[in-house]
Amino acid sequence: MPFKAYYMSPEGNMEAGLGEKEVKAAFQSKKGLLWVDIYDTTEADGDFLARNFGFHHLAIEDCVSPLIRPPKIDDFGSYLFLVIHGINHMGESDIVETTELNIFLGSHFVISNHNNPLYSVEYVTKMVEDDGRALRRGGDFLAYALIDALIDNVLPTIDKMSDFAETVEEEVIKSPQQSTLEAIMKLKRSVIRVHRVMAPQREVLNRMSRREFPIIREEALVFYRDVYDHIVRIEDLGQSLHDRADNALSTYLSSVANRQNETMKVLATVATIFMPLTLLAGIYGMNFEHMPELKWQWGYFGILILMGTAIIAAVSWFWARKWLAWTRRRVFAVRPFAVDPEKLKGYISQFAKRQRAQK
Amino acid sequence: MPFKAYYMSPEGNMEAGLGEKEVKAAFQSKKGLLWVDIYDTTEADGDFLARNFGFHHLAIEDCVSPLIRPPKIDDFGSYLFLVIHGINHMGESDIVETTELNIFLGSHFVISNHNNPLYSVEYVTKMVEDDGRALRRGGDFLAYALIDALIDNVLPTIDKMSDFAETVEEEVIKSPQQSTLEAIMKLKRSVIRVHRVMAPQREVLNRMSRREFPIIREEALVFYRDVYDHIVRIEDLGQSLHDRADNALSTYLSSVANRQNETMKVLATVATIFMPLTLLAGIYGMNFEHMPELKWQWGYFGILILMGTAIIAAVSWFWARKWLAWTRRRVFAVRPFAVDPEKLKGYISQFAKRQRAQK
Amino acid sequence: MPFKAYYMSPEGNMEAGLGEKEVKAAFQSKKGLLWVDIYDTTEADGDFLARNFGFHHLAIEDCVSPLIRPPKIDDFGSYLFLVIHGINHMGESDIVETTELNIFLGSHFVISNHNNPLYSVEYVTKMVEDDGRALRRGGDFLAYALIDALIDNVLPTIDKMSDFAETVEEEVIKSPQQSTLEAIMKLKRSVIRVHRVMAPQREVLNRMSRREFPIIREEALVFYRDVYDHIVRIEDLGQSLHDRADNALSTYLSSVANRQNETMKVLATVATIFMPLTLLAGIYGMNFEHMPELKWQWGYFGILILMGTAIIAAVSWFWARKWLAWTRRRVFAVRPFAVDPEKLKGYISQFAKRQRAQK
Amino acid sequence: MPFKAYYMSPEGNMEAGLGEKEVKAAFQSKKGLLWVDIYDTTEADGDFLARNFGFHHLAIEDCVSPLIRPPKIDDFGSYLFLVIHGINHMGESDIVETTELNIFLGSHFVISNHNNPLYSVEYVTKMVEDDGRALRRGGDFLAYALIDALIDNVLPTIDKMSDFAETVEEEVIKSPQQSTLEAIMKLKRSVIRVHRVMAPQREVLNRMSRREFPIIREEALVFYRDVYDHIVRIEDLGQSLHDRADNALSTYLSSVANRQNETMKVLATVATIFMPLTLLAGIYGMNFEHMPELKWQWGYFGILILMGTAIIAAVSWFWARKWLAWTRRRVFAVRPFAVDPEKLKGYISQFAKRQRAQK
Amino acid sequence: MPFKAYYMSPEGNMEAGLGEKEVKAAFQSKKGLLWVDIYDTTEADGDFLARNFGFHHLAIEDCVSPLIRPPKIDDFGSYLFLVIHGINHMGESDIVETTELNIFLGSHFVISNHNNPLYSVEYVTKMVEDDGRALRRGGDFLAYALIDALIDNVLPTIDKMSDFAETVEEEVIKSPQQSTLEAIMKLKRSVIRVHRVMAPQREVLNRMSRREFPIIREEALVFYRDVYDHIVRIEDLGQSLHDRADNALSTYLSSVANRQNETMKVLATVATIFMPLTLLAGIYGMNFEHMPELKWQWGYFGILILMGTAIIAAVSWFWARKWLAWTRRRVFAVRPFAVDPEKLKGYISQFAKRQRAQK
Repeated sequence: MPFKAYYMSPEGNMEAGLGEKEVKAAFQSKKGLLWVDIYDTTEADGDFLARNFGFHHLAIEDCVSPLIRPPKIDDFGSYLFLVIHGINHMGESDIVETTELNIFLGSHFVISNHNNPLYSVEYVTKMVEDDGRALRRGGDFLAYALIDALIDNVLPTIDKMSDFAETVEEEVIKSPQQSTLEAIMKLKRSVIRVHRVMAPQREVLNRMSRREFPIIREEALVFYRDVYDHIVRIEDLGQSLHDRADNALSTYLSSVANRQNETMKVLATVATIFMPLTLLAGIYGMNFEHMPELKWQWGYFGILILMGTAIIAAVSWFWARKWLAWTRRRVFAVRPFAVDPEKLKGYISQFAKRQRAQK
Repeated sequence: MPFKAYYMSPEGNMEAGLGEKEVKAAFQSKKGLLWVDIYDTTEADGDFLARNFGFHHLAIEDCVSPLIRPPKIDDFGSYLFLVIHGINHMGESDIVETTELNIFLGSHFVISNHNNPLYSVEYVTKMVEDDGRALRRGGDFLAYALIDALIDNVLPTIDKMSDFAETVEEEVIKSPQQSTLEAIMKLKRSVIRVHRVMAPQREVLNRMSRREFPIIREEALVFYRDVYDHIVRIEDLGQSLHDRADNALSTYLSSVANRQNETMKVLATVATIFMPLTLLAGIYGMNFEHMPELKWQWGYFGILILMGTAIIAAVSWFWARKWLAWTRRRVFAVRPFAVDPEKLKGYISQFAKRQRAQK
Repeated sequence: MPFKAYYMSPEGNMEAGLGEKEVKAAFQSKKGLLWVDIYDTTEADGDFLARNFGFHHLAIEDCVSPLIRPPKIDDFGSYLFLVIHGINHMGESDIVETTELNIFLGSHFVISNHNNPLYSVEYVTKMVEDDGRALRRGGDFLAYALIDALIDNVLPTIDKMSDFAETVEEEVIKSPQQSTLEAIMKLKRSVIRVHRVMAPQREVLNRMSRREFPIIREEALVFYRDVYDHIVRIEDLGQSLHDRADNALSTYLSSVANRQNETMKVLATVATIFMPLTLLAGIYGMNFEHMPELKWQWGYFGILILMGTAIIAAVSWFWARKWLAWTRRRVFAVRPFAVDPEKLKGYISQFAKRQRAQK
Repeated sequence: MPFKAYYMSPEGNMEAGLGEKEVKAAFQSKKGLLWVDIYDTTEADGDFLARNFGFHHLAIEDCVSPLIRPPKIDDFGSYLFLVIHGINHMGESDIVETTELNIFLGSHFVISNHNNPLYSVEYVTKMVEDDGRALRRGGDFLAYALIDALIDNVLPTIDKMSDFAETVEEEVIKSPQQSTLEAIMKLKRSVIRVHRVMAPQREVLNRMSRREFPIIREEALVFYRDVYDHIVRIEDLGQSLHDRADNALSTYLSSVANRQNETMKVLATVATIFMPLTLLAGIYGMNFEHMPELKWQWGYFGILILMGTAIIAAVSWFWARKWLAWTRRRVFAVRPFAVDPEKLKGYISQFAKRQRAQK
Repeated sequence: MPFKAYYMSPEGNMEAGLGEKEVKAAFQSKKGLLWVDIYDTTEADGDFLARNFGFHHLAIEDCVSPLIRPPKIDDFGSYLFLVIHGINHMGESDIVETTELNIFLGSHFVISNHNNPLYSVEYVTKMVEDDGRALRRGGDFLAYALIDALIDNVLPTIDKMSDFAETVEEEVIKSPQQSTLEAIMKLKRSVIRVHRVMAPQREVLNRMSRREFPIIREEALVFYRDVYDHIVRIEDLGQSLHDRADNALSTYLSSVANRQNETMKVLATVATIFMPLTLLAGIYGMNFEHMPELKWQWGYFGILILMGTAIIAAVSWFWARKWLAWTRRRVFAVRPFAVDPEKLKGYISQFAKRQRAQK
């Protein structure tokens, strides 16, 4: 039941490192701002929360349960209960993992709670310890700082995913293998996981920035709107990663088909060249008594020349038809969608005419 | 027509094992709380319900019919009729089966009805028999207990499905076979079935937690909201299982293509090596009279050495081009989405700057 | 212009087999309940409807037109015009066909109209002729009886489709062929057709059970709600058939790929075994003068034994690597999603603890 | 700037072939009904519209611009501006093309405008010239006549597409080729184009039939509702064509895979039969000195018989396993979804029992 | 921190090239119209915006940040903050890039800000410098001019994409290669990017044309509606490009399969012809002592003729069955969806009858 507690009195004096008693006293004073951050949550913390703050046991259960809960906001009248997700930067899995931050937000207190250490909470803690600034503006601003830091910390992971997508896209063109497919699948699952968490979060932030809850004051709304915009942007980036993963999958499957095609061509070419020649050799290996060619002086050399010519001719013909080099012949233009400036001017002058008409 | 009946009088005395007459009397007293649980429902139960409680015959028909009805809530004024689905843990099928619990919920009675024995009802029965506790808080709390137990019992099945998905994912990489495909299909169908039942249930619980029905009192709403949250979580887990099944299918199909590719390569390699050599042997098997090589002292050994060299050269070349080992060459990094802590700090300091600006 | 007409006077006397004049008189009396069922609709029926009842010509046009109209409800103030679809059990096509029943519903009349004979209308007719019962409760109940019978008659077709899906699923595993694919496509198209008709119908019935139209009296609403529930169930069953068809298609395509794989393997095996041996035989068929082996006493038998050994070794090796038996090796467990009762109890006891906390 | 103008005076006298002056006078009288139809629209028409009617220049721009605009309705207070799409029956492309009809609708005037000759406008023109009827009922009815005719003219194209789909479906089973694929793609693109235009049109007509615009009088609403229903039906037919195109594509791809499979089987069969026999012939072509069989009297004939027997045995075996005839073995029943009348009666009697219970 | 500033005094005098002081003065006068366009935005510009105009720091942060923000509109009471996207015509990437234009719109000022030089802003600048016209009608009209120019400049890129799609469609039929696939993917990603930006923009413009913001006056609404219509059209064109890219992908994959099929056929044909003949030659190459045919005078020639005949027969047979020419046999009709005018007339006359009925 480790926790850190800070209290900013109405007079602007900050106290840090409060014990349980002081926390309870500060909570019941209904003045100033109390912040308690509980980490490594255990069953005992449930009792702590019930005993000192009298929160609803269903909300407490959500905090204590080791199961991941989807993001949500519950309005209990005198306080809000929030479940917000960020990236678990300590996750050991090959897939992006999310982690949960629970916040009880009242006018005079913010109780946060999480299972994994969070860089974002650490950062806000440091900001508070430095100069108490983050506590001065009220609970809604402190909660905003926590949520904003959590959401912002998703971006480095999105960047990582973007780099990974790039590697995958290169691999899939250069040398597609089973492991490339697995990488695509990992990317896809990670993207879906981020999306699954961001979509309800967007709804939560949308409600928080809509004057629905009186605990969030007018002047804080625009900040919550800003977090909302960040989530929209993250969803946007996620969507574009999803498209890239899908495209990589299409390219992968088609590359496998192309490779198979090339193997087939090698086989067909070899068979087409050597089967007839083998028949020819077989014919002159027959033991008929009356085979005039066998007695010809230049028969053997003639056959050898014939065979050599046939091989060269066949290979040349396949080469000419590019059969064996069924690869990049025509490369599409670089920057294919760039518009010629002259053409663009034409458009603008047309547009000018139209605008003039509106005078 | 087997049933179990319990009655909690307004004075707090609990009676168990009531007969039909006592049930009717308790029902008509409109006081206390009556709970009747009917199992192994037959046609006769329809008469029982009509005779004693006077429920609407359409609702009774829904109870009696052996057909599965989708989850719903019907408001008949003085009582609600609910159809809720849980997992049929006794199902014999290879696909996850759901089962139905029907509840008539009035202010002074809860009549539940089901065809298959349900662990969840059993559990609530035991809780009632132990100390009557579950009856004391009213019909809406009893109905909540029944529904909550039913929904909670979905989780072990979701866990089982998750384990199954893991096995399938391993199989699909290690040794994809026709039976793997069938397993994927079973998983998919089970997931879809759970989703099909949870989606309307979510709507039902949403309405129940929204003060739409006066029978559910203010203080019970938050509990129904909690069940609603559980359903959202189950849907979430189901969705992630669905994604895994889809990914497994993609991987399966691509593995089949890869295997085919490898078979083709073996074939092409064998043909490319042996066809030319067979031609060579064929040539020296021809019966021309004038074939000078045949008379050479070392002709035969020369040819043997030539052939051996060709085989070794070809195999080496294929090996060098990794043609025959078109498998895991480059493995993607472990934990590919893990962010370097240094980089993360960079982000945080940037973020700090931004926060400071907001002062 | 064949029609059947029934009239229930306000005094409760039923007359059957009315002619046009009597129909008109009954219609204009605005008392009792008139039911006219027109079948084998022709242009003349349009005149009949306009002349006697003065319905809006657009509604009449919808009745008369041989084109199929999507389900809808039009409110013309003093009467409703309904288009409802059921299954055409007389359809000759391999795909499920729907058929249309048009109903004009007023307070004192129900005019129904259809092109194909309908089992459901036949049944209601018989019920009316037997004892006039269905007419006694008013027009909204008669219309309900007609619609309910029509919708209920969709179920046997859904059952048939379900049986068909089962056959297809077996075929697709046991012996997928082109005809299996065609069967899947027929199933898919039938399912889509049923869905296309049920979706707008659901909307129509939803509106009818929502007190939107005063012609449908309070006491009839719950019956329309019941039909609505049936449609929801049919849509549900249809959706599950759709999933099964999709899964069958996936399985089919993957089976074709698997079969091709096996053919390839046979080919690759044969080539790998016989090509080297043919080369060997070719070598000893060469006509070099100095080939010491040819003179060896046991050369020939040695070669024969060598070849035999090679064939046996290769086949054994392929067998051992299960290359030629790339089929059901490991079967997934039966009832893979069944939860161990012990585990279930664990869940229940956890749940109990949670419930106790709520006391 | 060719146009045709008709004017119906309030007294009911119709004038045709009005010049610009008369058009302007009629427009400014704000009485009767003026219809001007402008075709082959050029820049000059923009001036004409601005000069005489004073329409908003943005609407005029939409009329004049050669670019296709999506269907929409703009309310400019005293008049509505409509963009409606129909089929361009004169289009030269292989894909279905749509064309635009712009309508300015006021209480006393309808100004229509289009680039391509339209059969539907032609038809309304003729109807007006015949007896002026279409002008007598007011601007909303004239606009309805124009829109209805335009939408109705979509149906013959839908019929054509349906025929085309049938041909494609046959082709895809009988002899799938690259050109079949192209045909499927053409169908798909055409269907999508029709859908793209119908969807917003549905919204436009929905708004027009909803008493949103006072220019459309109460008595005309039902006619606009009728056009709305037609559009719904066209969308429905389009959707079913879309499904058929998708199914054809699935069938096509699977047919290609099946054909490949059959080619592979031929190859594998030929190789399996002839490779071992060629080895056998090679063995007896070896030049070992000690090969006892070579001296046997019946050795040669024995070998020939052995070879013949092997070929016959192999072919029979492949035949028996239906390997080479991997085609229509079992045909699914004709009318697979037809319900047995006896079974249907069973359902009806069950249903009767249920209905009786409701008495 | 380069910027251009223009000021139109209430008296209608335009000043250009204002410095920071004059800008601030003009801004604080709250009269006339001030336009400041900031390009090549740096951190310093953030200070500039805060110092002179006192904008909200969150909006300023959005301007200054190098990250791309999704389109949005924020209402700060006395001003609106807009993020609008256009095409980055200077982008170096192979994918279409978008670029951002930020606008602060108040009653008496428009502050625009962008990172890349924009043709559209350039054009409006020129229009302002020419005659100050664009400033005379107020801030909402100036903002409209900027947005309209930006959106209009998307069209040349859409045209380019359309041309590109055409090239891809040709390539995919004529000679599908890996590079064709890459081109399809580029097209798809570009289309998705345009769509991703246009969809929220549509919402922004919809709100701006809906009298939601008092800063945009009644008379300007129709112009914003017009921009909205343009965006709808661009989305429409984008959607059709998306369909074309998807179709091209389907065609590509099927072409690869077809090519593979043809390669297989060549292989199977060659093997079917030459393997039996090689066996035949092998048979007569055996060294049995008793092979009567070997002594026949015409044995050798007979065999040669037999072989020749067999080859010719096989090739003819394959040719006759079109096996080797599995390509365009039957071409579908040109303009397959064109309706016969006669048929169309039939439809029209039917329609006429219907219309007459409505009289």
